[in-house]
Amino acid sequence: MEKKVLIVYAHQSAGSFSAAAKEAAVDVLKSKDCSVEVSDLYATKFKATATAEDITGEVKNSEHFRYAEETKLAWDEGRLSADITEEQRKLQEADLVIFQFPMYWFTVPAILKGWFDRVLTLGFAYTKEKRYSNGIFKKTKALLSFTTGSQETMFSPTGINGDMNVTLWPLQNGILHYCGFQVLAPQIFWAPEDATPEGRSAMLAAWNTRLQGLLDEKPLFYAPMDCFDCESFQLKPESVEKLVKEFGPTAGTHCGKPLPPNNQMKAGV
Amino acid sequence: MEKKVLIVYAHQSAGSFSAAAKEAAVDVLKSKDCSVEVSDLYATKFKATATAEDITGEVKNSEHFRYAEETKLAWDEGRLSADITEEQRKLQEADLVIFQFPMYWFTVPAILKGWFDRVLTLGFAYTKEKRYSNGIFKKTKALLSFTTGSQETMFSPTGINGDMNVTLWPLQNGILHYCGFQVLAPQIFWAPEDATPEGRSAMLAAWNTRLQGLLDEKPLFYAPMDCFDCESFQLKPESVEKLVKEFGPTAGTHCGKPLPPNNQMKAGV
Repeated sequence: MEKKVLIVYAHQSAGSFSAAAKEAAVDVLKSKDCSVEVSDLYATKFKATATAEDITGEVKNSEHFRYAEETKLAWDEGRLSADITEEQRKLQEADLVIFQFPMYWFTVPAILKGWFDRVLTLGFAYTKEKRYSNGIFKKTKALLSFTTGSQETMFSPTGINGDMNVTLWPLQNGILHYCGFQVLAPQIFWAPEDATPEGRSAMLAAWNTRLQGLLDEKPLFYAPMDCFDCESFQLKPESVEKLVKEFGPTAGTHCGKPLPPNNQMKAGV
Repeated sequence: MEKKVLIVYAHQSAGSFSAAAKEAAVDVLKSKDCSVEVSDLYATKFKATATAEDITGEVKNSEHFRYAEETKLAWDEGRLSADITEEQRKLQEADLVIFQFPMYWFTVPAILKGWFDRVLTLGFAYTKEKRYSNGIFKKTKALLSFTTGSQETMFSPTGINGDMNVTLWPLQNGILHYCGFQVLAPQIFWAPEDATPEGRSAMLAAWNTRLQGLLDEKPLFYAPMDCFDCESFQLKPESVEKLVKEFGPTAGTHCGKPLPPNNQMKAGV
């Protein structure tokens, strides 16, 4: 069956490397008979800031406005703003979501953070019961594809920026996996602005190759929900015994052991 | 001498716990003869998105717009937008900066990410030569003060959200320390919305007490720049020998060892 892909794209310039990476994804995935939608956040001037204007009509408590609770109510009643509703529709239909962006300050640019803050609302994207491996989007794959300003060596476990696996944990576990997404290994374009034109072409060629089999890739490992106590959300003793050997199970839930190398970068580690 | 404090505050509602924490900081620090400025991001509708409109006049290359390079040029020539210039003035004058926010999706809300993206421009906040312990703001202290939605147990090294030290690394090392700031231990208000009124009062009372001595606190530890090779920005062998014992030196630059417990949460570990 035809697969649906959503690309959430956050770069200001059509001449950028990020634009080229996005175009490559559109072209290859269409050639594989996927239907592809692109949310071009800068071009559409996507609103980044979470405010009461995201709700049509009255808010419940304007004196003590709480974004999560107010958007939950609005979502229940079909009163979220049109731009949020449209992104939620695209996300709900997608089999795969690719986030294409330049890394700004060790995470996503504000406009893309605004997409996470505003689109992944309580009720729609998660509830207290439906999180992580029980999450709402557990049938959907998601992938961060991004450029860095720094070289790869700076992002190693001995590098001054620190291990990229640590930097990716809050994004990949805390946002994507939290909502249930199967997180595919990130596509990292290391410092394309410092590369030669041939170097940049080689990076795009490797991405083109990867895109051919992307939909069949295995996701990264996260300890499943049933490994955790349902009150404290800490690993159960029997899970610790099973999962903790030389390394902790993941970069975040490391149990005081060395981090499993490349846990946030490669499947099957 | 009178100390100057900047509070960058990001909550929509004057009735929130975040607002109360901000007010406590204003009151206590003023009572200690500090001059305090507050940047209230939602109230001033702070622009979150990094665009060409942040530059007054012509951009150098509109076909291939690169935010860091364009804002560097604009900063050199005094052509950054008025809102950015005003925040840069406040930051430059400050001895201490407090960021007060509710954690959204394991990091700052988009409006505060936009403050980082737009205010901490190349040239003004960092250069290739002036980063980390050689950073431009090395005489300034900075502190993240935030509320969480989850309980503390969920953010432990055995918890499902993962170790809070991992979550804080990209923010504290990657943004604050990158610009040279001396990073004070974060002030974390664990799940105030799930607490009783007495519990919330106790949290605010503890913050009040801490604020009394805040300006004299020692910062968190980061391996200084001279521990790293100046080409690869990896730890020099002699630094590895000195810094790596039972644990790695920091949560990010862990050298394949267990993370030093609470490295991003407490000074002197």
